[in-house]
Amino acid sequence: MKRWHAEYAWLGDRFVPDVVIESEDSVFTSVTPEVTASPPGALRLPGLTLPGLANAHSHAFHRAMRGRTQADRGSFWTWREHMYAVASRLTPESYLRLARATYAEMALAGITCVGEFHYLHHGPDGEPYAEPNVMADALFEAAAQAGIRITLLDTLYLAGGVGRELEGPQLRFGDGTAEAWAERVDAIVPPAHARLGCAIHSVRAVPPTAMGPVVSWSQRNGAPLHVHLSEQRAENEACLANYRRTPTRLLDQAGVLGPRTTVVHATHLTNGNIRDLGGARVFVCMCPTTERDLADGIGPARALAKRGATLTLGTDSHAMIDMFEEARAVELDERLRSEERGHWTAAELLGAATAAGHASLGWPDAGVIAAGAQADLVTLDRSSVRLAGGGRHTATESVIFAATASDVRYVVSGGVEVVMDGRHLLVTDVAGELSQAIAEVLGD
Amino acid sequence: MKRWHAEYAWLGDRFVPDVVIESEDSVFTSVTPEVTASPPGALRLPGLTLPGLANAHSHAFHRAMRGRTQADRGSFWTWREHMYAVASRLTPESYLRLARATYAEMALAGITCVGEFHYLHHGPDGEPYAEPNVMADALFEAAAQAGIRITLLDTLYLAGGVGRELEGPQLRFGDGTAEAWAERVDAIVPPAHARLGCAIHSVRAVPPTAMGPVVSWSQRNGAPLHVHLSEQRAENEACLANYRRTPTRLLDQAGVLGPRTTVVHATHLTNGNIRDLGGARVFVCMCPTTERDLADGIGPARALAKRGATLTLGTDSHAMIDMFEEARAVELDERLRSEERGHWTAAELLGAATAAGHASLGWPDAGVIAAGAQADLVTLDRSSVRLAGGGRHTATESVIFAATASDVRYVVSGGVEVVMDGRHLLVTDVAGELSQAIAEVLGD
Repeated sequence: MKRWHAEYAWLGDRFVPDVVIESEDSVFTSVTPEVTASPPGALRLPGLTLPGLANAHSHAFHRAMRGRTQADRGSFWTWREHMYAVASRLTPESYLRLARATYAEMALAGITCVGEFHYLHHGPDGEPYAEPNVMADALFEAAAQAGIRITLLDTLYLAGGVGRELEGPQLRFGDGTAEAWAERVDAIVPPAHARLGCAIHSVRAVPPTAMGPVVSWSQRNGAPLHVHLSEQRAENEACLANYRRTPTRLLDQAGVLGPRTTVVHATHLTNGNIRDLGGARVFVCMCPTTERDLADGIGPARALAKRGATLTLGTDSHAMIDMFEEARAVELDERLRSEERGHWTAAELLGAATAAGHASLGWPDAGVIAAGAQADLVTLDRSSVRLAGGGRHTATESVIFAATASDVRYVVSGGVEVVMDGRHLLVTDVAGELSQAIAEVLGD
Repeated sequence: MKRWHAEYAWLGDRFVPDVVIESEDSVFTSVTPEVTASPPGALRLPGLTLPGLANAHSHAFHRAMRGRTQADRGSFWTWREHMYAVASRLTPESYLRLARATYAEMALAGITCVGEFHYLHHGPDGEPYAEPNVMADALFEAAAQAGIRITLLDTLYLAGGVGRELEGPQLRFGDGTAEAWAERVDAIVPPAHARLGCAIHSVRAVPPTAMGPVVSWSQRNGAPLHVHLSEQRAENEACLANYRRTPTRLLDQAGVLGPRTTVVHATHLTNGNIRDLGGARVFVCMCPTTERDLADGIGPARALAKRGATLTLGTDSHAMIDMFEEARAVELDERLRSEERGHWTAAELLGAATAAGHASLGWPDAGVIAAGAQADLVTLDRSSVRLAGGGRHTATESVIFAATASDVRYVVSGGVEVVMDGRHLLVTDVAGELSQAIAEVLGD
């Protein structure tokens, strides 16, 4: 049994003072607000304690490119060439090292669960490894070593573009057919800290005729299904030219959309798309720092939510790893577009970063501080210079609009202490491991 | 004499390894690159060393509102009501405490010089203080205690809107006439760490007939002249309705625009405005985190620079105090608008945050690591998790696109060490002072 005494804890709608929280194994057993005397054996948590943050969209290996791609001008598509260069060099061993360090950076930022959109399956030239899921195993192991939970979203990737063969580094992503994909994925047995989901890379990479087996797999397993959607206008144009419908409509007709589905980005949509996605009750994962970095544009997050979709958040390419930055950017980018303030409340954005994100990754039992939920806690230093001076009644606003990942002092994931005083307890030199793992792949 | 040995130092266009830097009094006396053996008495600076950062646009007291205004929806104009409430409560004593803590937060973020756009001159109801520049003195003293330099931009503020009298808290801003303003300002004697400039609040607050004395004062003193410009569409509309010209044109015809002038925000401009501002060789101070927070919109920074204006950066309302965030936001917001990458190089943005910002504040002798310049240094921890893994040849890109204020480890301002190991040496509890100073004004 573990016991904490939080100065302030966020109980789903507001911060409550002096909350005693207990866990047994990896699950909370009781949550008692407003206990002023510290109970015996309780660890006092000064500051603002949140549920664990869920990073609902990650490509772990993209971390290697942070900063390095900024010297080139160009587009999403030239950036993708860099990304392929990294993908082409990874081995199961080097990917374990890179993902372990990246997930450790996530833990330091208060992320206790990651959704890894995983398509780097095979060896060079697409030759399957002797153990065909060795890359998935590397990611499971990386998350375990970094002290966080993972949902592996094993991704179907068949084409190099609408009507184009895979080529070059893309060969490593492909399983040939959806049936071969399903067979490989059925052999994956996720360890206790992991759950398994599936993904369709995009309408660029998967023809509609091949989507059925993924939808069936998701239904059969009650598992999350994620898909990149309309991040770039060129995707919409190619889809319209070839299929005479928008990507959203194509996915809808292929049966992909539903309450277990997460569409990622959803940047360039028609009003009809917004209605269809909302009506299907999908999760929409916005990745604002990546979408800003890659010049994607500003997706209609608020309009989607009004129609019935649920917002989640991801750091995607890891240009930054900071869920507070993702959360506020949804509101702030909407302000830039609309020239009005106040589209989202801070509580809504915190919900997206916690409970909604976990639900979209197949952990409906996480992201809240409540008996029966996964025992995840993230404590922010209320006396950092960024948070200092915030009002007692606007603590949620301070967290969303002023906190950064560097204000995270303490993290518990599944009942296990991972971060203490801002230091990772399992990966003692996260920055050093990042440097080494990236230099191994890209050089100095 | 002081001596440093920087692992990498930014010498105006790139990072150079193993740079020996010497200063005498407050000025650099020599800069010698590529010295591998550490010379005697030199302090080794591991990481990436930059010149001091210039925060070219600050309203120190706005720091009190961080986070607190986010609970309200509404607009720039409702936000302004909050701001007036803070302004109405400050005394010279409480403003000294608030500004000292705010400037100390700036020092921790690597800011060695601030441009304070100062209009809170008088007592309640506009009654001048016995010492009419006591508020200016408080700001000078605050900067001194926080270890940074200051340019006080003493601001003319005469009207509550185009054709409207001052009212309520605005009465504290007004000097009645431009001549009375000039007389008061002429009595200010800035101390050694300070320089004096002037400002016209905006076309909202100063009729064109009253701008002449400010322009003359600027010319007579060879001093910077700053002015808020076209931050909100409503300002443009009121200006057009009353004067039949845009704010830019109005300023131009009043003789305000020139190479000593900084226009702040410049968000909503016509193509003609962009040509005129560029042709006048003004500085344009973008404050992207504030402009995003206040839903102002995205100013045409690149177009202005192409026409001949020089970019500078400010944290303005202090929703955040992080010059790296300001710098990258200029590029990233342009990406959101244009859906293209690569409008600014990282070196250009770093120049805006350093040499250009200082020049716009009347310190052409600062913002570079070179003999004869003000001895300011800012060292970033290259082994933070944010910067780890950056490429050797893309260090400038890593700084601009991945660093945060919390990566600043060491700061020297005018030859004096202000920050060591990320801690302020003069203000030992910056967060505590922020909390106390803000609670004193706004309560818990």
